Amino acid sequence: MTIVHDLTQQLQRKNDSKIVLLVADGLGGLPLTPGGKTELETANTPHLDALAGRGSLGGSIPVLPGITPGSGPGHLGLFGYDPLEYRIGRGVLEALGIDFELGPDDVAIRGNFCTLDAQGNISDRRAGRIASDIGAKLCEKLDQITIPGVEVFVRPVKEYRCVIVFRAAGLAGDVHDTDPQNTGGPPLAPQARNEQSRGTAEICVEFLRQARGVLKNDAPANFLTLRGIDKLPAIPRFEDVYGTRAAAIAVYPMYRGLARLVSMSVLDAGQTLSDQMDRLEKVWNDYDFFFIHFKYTDSTGEDGNFDAKVKRIEELDAVIPRITSLKPDVIAVTGDHSTPCKMKSHSWHPVPVLIAAENCRYDNVTTFGETQCRLGGLGQFEAKYLMLQLLAYAGRLDKYGA
Amino acid sequence: MTIVHDLTQQLQRKNDSKIVLLVADGLGGLPLTPGGKTELETANTPHLDALAGRGSLGGSIPVLPGITPGSGPGHLGLFGYDPLEYRIGRGVLEALGIDFELGPDDVAIRGNFCTLDAQGNISDRRAGRIASDIGAKLCEKLDQITIPGVEVFVRPVKEYRCVIVFRAAGLAGDVHDTDPQNTGGPPLAPQARNEQSRGTAEICVEFLRQARGVLKNDAPANFLTLRGIDKLPAIPRFEDVYGTRAAAIAVYPMYRGLARLVSMSVLDAGQTLSDQMDRLEKVWNDYDFFFIHFKYTDSTGEDGNFDAKVKRIEELDAVIPRITSLKPDVIAVTGDHSTPCKMKSHSWHPVPVLIAAENCRYDNVTTFGETQCRLGGLGQFEAKYLMLQLLAYAGRLDKYGA
Repeated sequence: MTIVHDLTQQLQRKNDSKIVLLVADGLGGLPLTPGGKTELETANTPHLDALAGRGSLGGSIPVLPGITPGSGPGHLGLFGYDPLEYRIGRGVLEALGIDFELGPDDVAIRGNFCTLDAQGNISDRRAGRIASDIGAKLCEKLDQITIPGVEVFVRPVKEYRCVIVFRAAGLAGDVHDTDPQNTGGPPLAPQARNEQSRGTAEICVEFLRQARGVLKNDAPANFLTLRGIDKLPAIPRFEDVYGTRAAAIAVYPMYRGLARLVSMSVLDAGQTLSDQMDRLEKVWNDYDFFFIHFKYTDSTGEDGNFDAKVKRIEELDAVIPRITSLKPDVIAVTGDHSTPCKMKSHSWHPVPVLIAAENCRYDNVTTFGETQCRLGGLGQFEAKYLMLQLLAYAGRLDKYGA
Repeated sequence: MTIVHDLTQQLQRKNDSKIVLLVADGLGGLPLTPGGKTELETANTPHLDALAGRGSLGGSIPVLPGITPGSGPGHLGLFGYDPLEYRIGRGVLEALGIDFELGPDDVAIRGNFCTLDAQGNISDRRAGRIASDIGAKLCEKLDQITIPGVEVFVRPVKEYRCVIVFRAAGLAGDVHDTDPQNTGGPPLAPQARNEQSRGTAEICVEFLRQARGVLKNDAPANFLTLRGIDKLPAIPRFEDVYGTRAAAIAVYPMYRGLARLVSMSVLDAGQTLSDQMDRLEKVWNDYDFFFIHFKYTDSTGEDGNFDAKVKRIEELDAVIPRITSLKPDVIAVTGDHSTPCKMKSHSWHPVPVLIAAENCRYDNVTTFGETQCRLGGLGQFEAKYLMLQLLAYAGRLDKYGA
């Protein structure tokens, strides 16, 4: 139990307030040239600016200064779970992302179909990015694999990606990846990181032995590598630690999975921002806390497409009135990390944060951007402390100590 | 031992420097309208502004972002004691607040007079808020209760509130409140949280049994409930951890008690700021560190009286020359928390901090206010790190590591 949850469990107070946490994935950016503007600063965002005008800005450090997070730690931090305490394997994340209901006996693995050449060396780590329907058919075949004493599940994710789950009492999850991270050599043999995980490593060996036979005629997807082998971490329920009924309105499976990991209610979010807003309006009376996830600020950042990211930010800005017209008591807009187009990757830079609520200490900042956030009233803080502030602004935390 | 004290014990260096920590309780505020000024920004504070001009400003986070502290945790933080590590029960705080000299064998309890109806159910948890003189008389009667092997003290606080202290070797303090927090049912029976506290729970039972008889004709105050049952926490001495002889010049009992808790010398402070300044001047050569507490910035904030808080800040400003004329090496002005008039309560907002000393990194900020503090050279930091900075500016900390 982190100190944050120790405090929120002790101090939580129920009321009728509504909190909206709008996460624009990879929101933070960089200017392309010295003195230039970031993506967010370039975007025309009248509605976000209006929120900035009546709110407080700041910078969120996803994990620690200089640490670039993946989506898992990035979101855990925003949800108030210390990303250095709660660690999520890639396999678990992928399983959550396809709505697979992981249990405590399950070891989850991210599988990547790959291409082996005649010598058994990897010639393509992504099997030519096979289409999703082909991947799905291969998964159906692999799902037939039987290993005595173990339930085996193989489920497609997208293109060359799949999830493998081994279910058996007492399995540990500490096994090294078999993906060598480069081509020209063979996949690595499954190797346990510790004594307790030997059994799991042996199951991996047997699974791969059978998979090699099953897939032998399916080039370019004639084999697969195993990554992020892990079990579900024990994570306290969001409602228990914060006293709010939380709903996740996210389109992409991974973010739905992350919300499910902390036991939010994961709602049907449709495919578009507009669908998400429809859902938000429909369930407004049923929950206290709404996590809304917008993916495309990250994917355009990863693509290095500055103009596209600017447009996506403007697209997000355009739906803000649909949120504010519901009159949330607290609305926070931020990202799980920065994804500067200039870097075409996640980064460690502080993420812009905006909180608009009654009792904000106005900071005379009236536009939402990285430069403005540096001067904002929230200052710079670790993402894991965002939830404390959202609850405070919502009047949902009692005083600490007499 | 916190990391702070681990460092200060290791690095402390003696010299002739003088440090003044002026705490304006609840100093931080909020503007009443967007774009408006806070109480501190509204006040005309030429002397504080002059200090700001030659000092550095910043924002102090009392506990963690979003956490609103009571006076206990607020002051412990300022004194460099992690308020999440050292917890003070309500009973202890009340006892300190009436200058009751708690010892290590004492269990302190906050008592609330209440009204029981004919069925023995609580009909008023505050006994109609009886006048203080009536409460005092009832305490005198209860103070006559004798329990074999235990010294019993009952002292009035104010109106329906009193302090009960049980003194006996080996008592533990983990007993649940007997106040059910609502009316219509009977008080709860004293219940130990652990095996070691069984004896204390039994003493509570016997005390309440006798109290029921003593008070039976004193309706509306015909019984009392017990809250915040606790012992003094073991807190290292201020002088030991910092190497400074510290004096507290505080008018209000609770703050005198908090200073006593960390073993400061608690001096006669009179009744007014002017009395406090007189005392400061008299003892200037006898101590290295001076904690001066000013209550009225908090009480006017709690009252929601913006103009009164502004005036109280100006009153504080007016005595600054009496402090600066003593030529302290370091003078710090801050609060234990914010008490915005807008909220009529303590809040979680960062508290303005001003440190004026030789070797400040001037931040080109020449007025003392929340907006200016956001841009100040000290940045935003947890209150528990203030002492490290005061010692540093006073030249009282050696280099860490070679």
